[in-house]
Amino acid sequence: MSSTPDISAVRSYLLSLQNALCSALEQEDGTAHFHEDTWQRPANGGGGRTRILADGAVFEKAGVAFSHVRGTQLPPSATAHRPELVGRSWEALGVSLVIHPRNPYIPTSHANVRFFHAAPPPNPSPLASRPSPAGAPAPVWWFGGGFDLTPYYGFEDDATHWHRTARDAVSPFGDTLYPRFKKACDNYFFLKHRQEPRGLGGLFFDDFNELGFENSFALTRAVADAFLPAYRPIVARRKSTPFTDRERQFQLYRRGRYVEFNLVWDRGTLFGLQSGGRTESILMSLPPLVRWDYDWHPEPGSPESRLYDVFLKPRDWATG
Amino acid sequence: MSSTPDISAVRSYLLSLQNALCSALEQEDGTAHFHEDTWQRPANGGGGRTRILADGAVFEKAGVAFSHVRGTQLPPSATAHRPELVGRSWEALGVSLVIHPRNPYIPTSHANVRFFHAAPPPNPSPLASRPSPAGAPAPVWWFGGGFDLTPYYGFEDDATHWHRTARDAVSPFGDTLYPRFKKACDNYFFLKHRQEPRGLGGLFFDDFNELGFENSFALTRAVADAFLPAYRPIVARRKSTPFTDRERQFQLYRRGRYVEFNLVWDRGTLFGLQSGGRTESILMSLPPLVRWDYDWHPEPGSPESRLYDVFLKPRDWATG
Repeated sequence: MSSTPDISAVRSYLLSLQNALCSALEQEDGTAHFHEDTWQRPANGGGGRTRILADGAVFEKAGVAFSHVRGTQLPPSATAHRPELVGRSWEALGVSLVIHPRNPYIPTSHANVRFFHAAPPPNPSPLASRPSPAGAPAPVWWFGGGFDLTPYYGFEDDATHWHRTARDAVSPFGDTLYPRFKKACDNYFFLKHRQEPRGLGGLFFDDFNELGFENSFALTRAVADAFLPAYRPIVARRKSTPFTDRERQFQLYRRGRYVEFNLVWDRGTLFGLQSGGRTESILMSLPPLVRWDYDWHPEPGSPESRLYDVFLKPRDWATG
Repeated sequence: MSSTPDISAVRSYLLSLQNALCSALEQEDGTAHFHEDTWQRPANGGGGRTRILADGAVFEKAGVAFSHVRGTQLPPSATAHRPELVGRSWEALGVSLVIHPRNPYIPTSHANVRFFHAAPPPNPSPLASRPSPAGAPAPVWWFGGGFDLTPYYGFEDDATHWHRTARDAVSPFGDTLYPRFKKACDNYFFLKHRQEPRGLGGLFFDDFNELGFENSFALTRAVADAFLPAYRPIVARRKSTPFTDRERQFQLYRRGRYVEFNLVWDRGTLFGLQSGGRTESILMSLPPLVRWDYDWHPEPGSPESRLYDVFLKPRDWATG
């Protein structure tokens, strides 16, 4: 089992993942197409390709973004707790996806996979690096990723299918991973200021390298590749459900929670905005249309209150 | 000139300010009324009264909130740079206002005044407090406040009127204050991730006690009392301007910037959400309906691009 990180293999996989996601989503939408923007950071700092589908028949907005950025040193905030990263050049690669469907019976979904790599220092200094057992400083790397689902009107069979697909993607890599990643997802996608989960969860992992490079990469691919089998059947079975303005207004209201989470709590969004990332690519996650109503609460017993009572409570959907 | 802080005088003023603002806004709207919620924090921690007007003829949403909260000790983040506050009981009082008009030719506006007071420690300790000249520890207090304007379609005469009213409110208290508060406002209401001002500014001050209590309070009242004369004439002359869906969509799009500023950069919002404030009162500032469009830019030469070219550039409107 090789543990030498292969950045170009990760890059190829991520580019093909973006292609696969976009073409499946275009097929599922049936009418609209992704528009691509490529962008570069100054001074050889990398860049990305952001793809947006807008105003589709099924997807009101979908974004699938690839980025590969690099630098010669990390900001102090990143090295404060990782002194071994001081003075190292680094690269970060990832694909992010956010889908805001038009029909309120289709849940919003989010997926992300990412890889971070810091090279050994070019002139090894005994102060700035820890020697590996062989005497040379080792590279530092990890994977992260996951996906999560945010329904407006929940369905038990959708929730079960989503979580079982997540579980089955991860279980070949060890029995403890699914419960760990599931719990991490529930913990991460939580609006503390409302004491409310963003949705019904899924998978979340970060700083992951414990299986060595090959298997950690394989796990990351397994998660990313499970997104379409997890989400697409849900889209397919809900996209023709008739809805009225009532469901639409509730969808717009609940989308406000998505904005609140992403702008107040999401670490990736905040780090990106505060560190000079490409704003339009970072904020492609925001819904196309959103409403806020002061102190609104669903009527007890209504279909809207079912979201809160049944689906916005962490639960073991996979075995339940 | 007395410098003994009079919290109950501040409280009475703020309550009457809230009444005056709400009744003038109801009058200007002509149809809708404010709905009031009173709320309490646990353990004698104070509370507030939040007033919201929704779906008016002129104002799509207006919020005017009074709060008076207190505690027996400040969080470490608040005392890190102010060791003299350790162990002191404190009170914070304020009125905040945010108005989202329906007509895109009326600008959104925001105003806020606040007072902070930390009592002398009950058992003076030479380590935790600085003795006043008379030997007893002095209370620590300051005022803050201001108002700022966020147009969608700008008008030079509105901008001039707004800033002149601001200048005339402040100038009796010293010649240097207006340029200082105007600049502080431009600096504060700035979206760093877009390198874009939130609007055309106004006044902003904080930690203000340099005129002694009586005059600092008088200055704060002068600012707060200038809000209606600054804003109301603008509302009155724009509220009947006909508009089409084009202006409406641009308004909804630009409201996204308001959300981004408040959730990503506004210190009061973030402190409130992260420290367990009343979420619905804090987020009353969010617009009722908002849109995000990926990488949208106004057509050069269009009325929409005039906002960016003319009004979203800091400028000396008062003398200009």
